[in-house]
Amino acid sequence: MNGLFLSEIKQPAWLAKYIESCGNRIMTTPEERIRFTIRLALENVKNGTGGPFGAALFERKSNRLFAAGVNVVVPSGQTLAHAELMALSNAERLSGAINLSDYEIVSSCEPCVMCFGGIMWSRVTSLLYGAPGSFAGAVGFDEGDKVPDWHSSLTSRGIEVAGPMLIEEANEPFELYRRLSGQIY
Amino acid sequence: MNGLFLSEIKQPAWLAKYIESCGNRIMTTPEERIRFTIRLALENVKNGTGGPFGAALFERKSNRLFAAGVNVVVPSGQTLAHAELMALSNAERLSGAINLSDYEIVSSCEPCVMCFGGIMWSRVTSLLYGAPGSFAGAVGFDEGDKVPDWHSSLTSRGIEVAGPMLIEEANEPFELYRRLSGQIY
Repeated sequence: MNGLFLSEIKQPAWLAKYIESCGNRIMTTPEERIRFTIRLALENVKNGTGGPFGAALFERKSNRLFAAGVNVVVPSGQTLAHAELMALSNAERLSGAINLSDYEIVSSCEPCVMCFGGIMWSRVTSLLYGAPGSFAGAVGFDEGDKVPDWHSSLTSRGIEVAGPMLIEEANEPFELYRRLSGQIY
Repeated sequence: MNGLFLSEIKQPAWLAKYIESCGNRIMTTPEERIRFTIRLALENVKNGTGGPFGAALFERKSNRLFAAGVNVVVPSGQTLAHAELMALSNAERLSGAINLSDYEIVSSCEPCVMCFGGIMWSRVTSLLYGAPGSFAGAVGFDEGDKVPDWHSSLTSRGIEVAGPMLIEEANEPFELYRRLSGQIY
């Protein structure tokens, strides 16, 4: 019966190596941090390890990369395995606390409604994202219905929000995904 | 580095035993199915294994229990470990497919905004719930901002919704939690 009660989701092997190659992991500008998550999304598509989405947690005071995640819905068979929830889950495991208030979450794309909720519950204090949700919608990903003033919903809970940003670059993972005719989830 | 890239969340040991004790696992009426998830929520609080929330997946044509989950946010240190996402994750593992359209999700309480999204992505075709979200709010749980017509948002995606239902019984896990002064997450 153990299979019934254990959720185990693996991130792709290339991700660890990719992070190891990132030098001191400090990315000072918002653009650098978003660009990093866009690269994760591109690598994920190129490697065939999941959907065109990447996310990462950075320590706010140092801008140092702390944890990362990519969408692994199809390979894991788990529909909750979106990039943001994977990055948050990894960050919580690393920090050992249910409070990520010292961290910023950065995503290659506007979070879907599930991840919007997950970001709130993690207590991060900043969200930075690249592509607008409509870019994901344009290649067939349903982002779900968020409240129209979802930025305010986050800021009222102490979470700064900035995005969309670097939108041309942030569309590249979707374009690549479309060209490779990926399965939509 | 493996710890960085693996999310593993265990459900409490009593849950497997509890399900084993459920006989043929067929629960014909909506009330029986909701009552089952309320009992999971109560057991979770009594055992000190997490928050006052339980959820389960039932096969629609047989009304047979297929998978279950309880909130293990505090013991797992994972803020995504809500009852609904745990139940869906277990069901996806058991079914081996990213498509739970043959199943109904039942929850002891109205889903928060994160789980509202997760329910959509799972492709279940029915949601049944007990307590209104305000009951969770009354004991300090933030449920997040959902669109006002969130039932319609689900039905437009082929998911039937019924609830709140059995609301007096569905409040018992929250009352017990309040009496035991549980940590709020």
